[in-house]
Amino acid sequence: MTLMIQPVILCGGAGTRLWPESRGDRAKQFLSLTGGQSLFRQTVQRTPAGPDFLPPVILCGDAHVAAVREQMDGREAALLVEPMPRNTAAAIALAVAQADANTLLLVMPSDHVIADIPAFHAAIAKGVRLAQHDWLVTFGIAPSRPETGFGYIADGAPLGAADEDGGFAVDRFIEKPPLADAEAMLAAGGYSWNAGIFLFRAARMRDAMLTHCRAIFEAADRAVAAGMRDGDALYADAIQFEAAPSDSIDYAVMEKDDRVAVVPVSMGWSDLGSWHMIHALGDQDADGNAVAGDVFLHDSHGNLVRAGGKRVSLVGMENVAVIVDGDDILVMPLARSQDVRAAAKARE
Amino acid sequence: MTLMIQPVILCGGAGTRLWPESRGDRAKQFLSLTGGQSLFRQTVQRTPAGPDFLPPVILCGDAHVAAVREQMDGREAALLVEPMPRNTAAAIALAVAQADANTLLLVMPSDHVIADIPAFHAAIAKGVRLAQHDWLVTFGIAPSRPETGFGYIADGAPLGAADEDGGFAVDRFIEKPPLADAEAMLAAGGYSWNAGIFLFRAARMRDAMLTHCRAIFEAADRAVAAGMRDGDALYADAIQFEAAPSDSIDYAVMEKDDRVAVVPVSMGWSDLGSWHMIHALGDQDADGNAVAGDVFLHDSHGNLVRAGGKRVSLVGMENVAVIVDGDDILVMPLARSQDVRAAAKARE
Repeated sequence: MTLMIQPVILCGGAGTRLWPESRGDRAKQFLSLTGGQSLFRQTVQRTPAGPDFLPPVILCGDAHVAAVREQMDGREAALLVEPMPRNTAAAIALAVAQADANTLLLVMPSDHVIADIPAFHAAIAKGVRLAQHDWLVTFGIAPSRPETGFGYIADGAPLGAADEDGGFAVDRFIEKPPLADAEAMLAAGGYSWNAGIFLFRAARMRDAMLTHCRAIFEAADRAVAAGMRDGDALYADAIQFEAAPSDSIDYAVMEKDDRVAVVPVSMGWSDLGSWHMIHALGDQDADGNAVAGDVFLHDSHGNLVRAGGKRVSLVGMENVAVIVDGDDILVMPLARSQDVRAAAKARE
Repeated sequence: MTLMIQPVILCGGAGTRLWPESRGDRAKQFLSLTGGQSLFRQTVQRTPAGPDFLPPVILCGDAHVAAVREQMDGREAALLVEPMPRNTAAAIALAVAQADANTLLLVMPSDHVIADIPAFHAAIAKGVRLAQHDWLVTFGIAPSRPETGFGYIADGAPLGAADEDGGFAVDRFIEKPPLADAEAMLAAGGYSWNAGIFLFRAARMRDAMLTHCRAIFEAADRAVAAGMRDGDALYADAIQFEAAPSDSIDYAVMEKDDRVAVVPVSMGWSDLGSWHMIHALGDQDADGNAVAGDVFLHDSHGNLVRAGGKRVSLVGMENVAVIVDGDDILVMPLARSQDVRAAAKARE
């Protein structure tokens, strides 16, 4: 059979951890957060292309169709529009339902950074060999710190030929760990971060979903069948899709299946999941300040300032985020970045 | 002779220590900083009136004529317009030059807070008796803390009848002291803060100026003579006034004259000279936050937030000022309030 790989870009996230810039129809993935192009554009550009690759499927909500079309910059793509958010299992089920049985689906979030694209592509090549043998493949990020904000994957038996680094059967998935556990896993080795990048044969995932989360797959399958096509976009049927239980692909399938593989990869990955991370990965001046826009700093160090078209002046400030977006101004210590949701919730 | 007292309200200050709200044609004195009326309106309203008092003379710059007219709220006043700022000695010289010789001039800044107005008026009554005997009278604020941001006045010999609290001859003026000196003066007693409120007979000040700073008085006198009247306003002549050396009334006259009196007064005075002071005197919630406008606070304490029509959200912040005005956003620790000029200078 001819090998065909279908990239699937998950674009449904709201990204409230980066409020106020990320919200409503301007979700995190469409923003320029690290000085260059938006995360979505970066994702599209690093998506493998070539004779084995179909144009990508973009899974997104109705509110983001315009942003997706604009940021595809004329590239060929198929839009698969979710009538409402139903988490990653149902989103991926939509992609599975419309795919040819033997197509390999390469599922990727649209809001991450990957610095080493050759390493990413090499990992995909390894994953393809496993997916062709009906493994559900996940890509594991080699951890660089005892991060407590991610789930972890424990390597099991090595796969592939004895002389190659061909990935591992997954021993188990570990939920966001306490710090002590994260430190122990980092020290022990054999663990990686779950980055939400997956590769699998469509029919294999269909079967897995019918086994592990039948209601999700059937709702998505019906939503595609009853969907409305509009040019390059397929709008999944709202009544059918609404019936899909909301669950993550990890809970609904990956943690339940017994033929899941992990391909560990070191590729300069970040989920840019907080303003703290944006600061850490941003271009910092000699005083550790990362700024965007019209910012005046006096005796200030280690700050993230995004002026959003306004004029921001800091005097004597240390290690805070000042994020301006429209009429919203957020001020918080960078170390409190996880608590931004309190403000986002109150304001949105 | 009939006693006539002419209030003179000095309105020429720029108030850059309260940038960004105070700037350009919206100087500090015209802002509502403590929740109620502007400092200028408060000054006008507490200015004594009655058969002995003439309508006030308002000394202001060209940029502030409109604000003064608006905030006089229809009260009678004479505007004396400075073509350019030349500090307090030249401003007061303008008022002296246009006054009748025997009128007492009561000179007051327009950007201070006085909580106890009866105490203020009682002090004026004491001062009147001294000014009638050709003392240059200054009102000294009983110090409540070892403030290093003000000049001090040392009491000399007591004046007035033995059985009354009639003020003191000034022993000497002390420039903004180091903390140790401020603490020593507070502990010793007999010192007060120089608040820039003065009372004197016009001819007495004219003579003092001709002795101590002749160039300033002569330039101001010519500027009044060549000035242009427009309704209630006298626009001092620019070419003449420009020749006046720029000096404070303290340096130019008070510190040099040998017949200067101080009337100590405790009247809930504040110069609201910094955002720190605005916070200290503002209405604070149970967490010590003083806010104006649309402000969301999460786990934040001791902050001053003025939203300026925008929406400000603080998460986990302590003891900072966030001041929004138009497109300008200032963020600094309240303890660094004196350094706001760095930002004001860079931005204006």
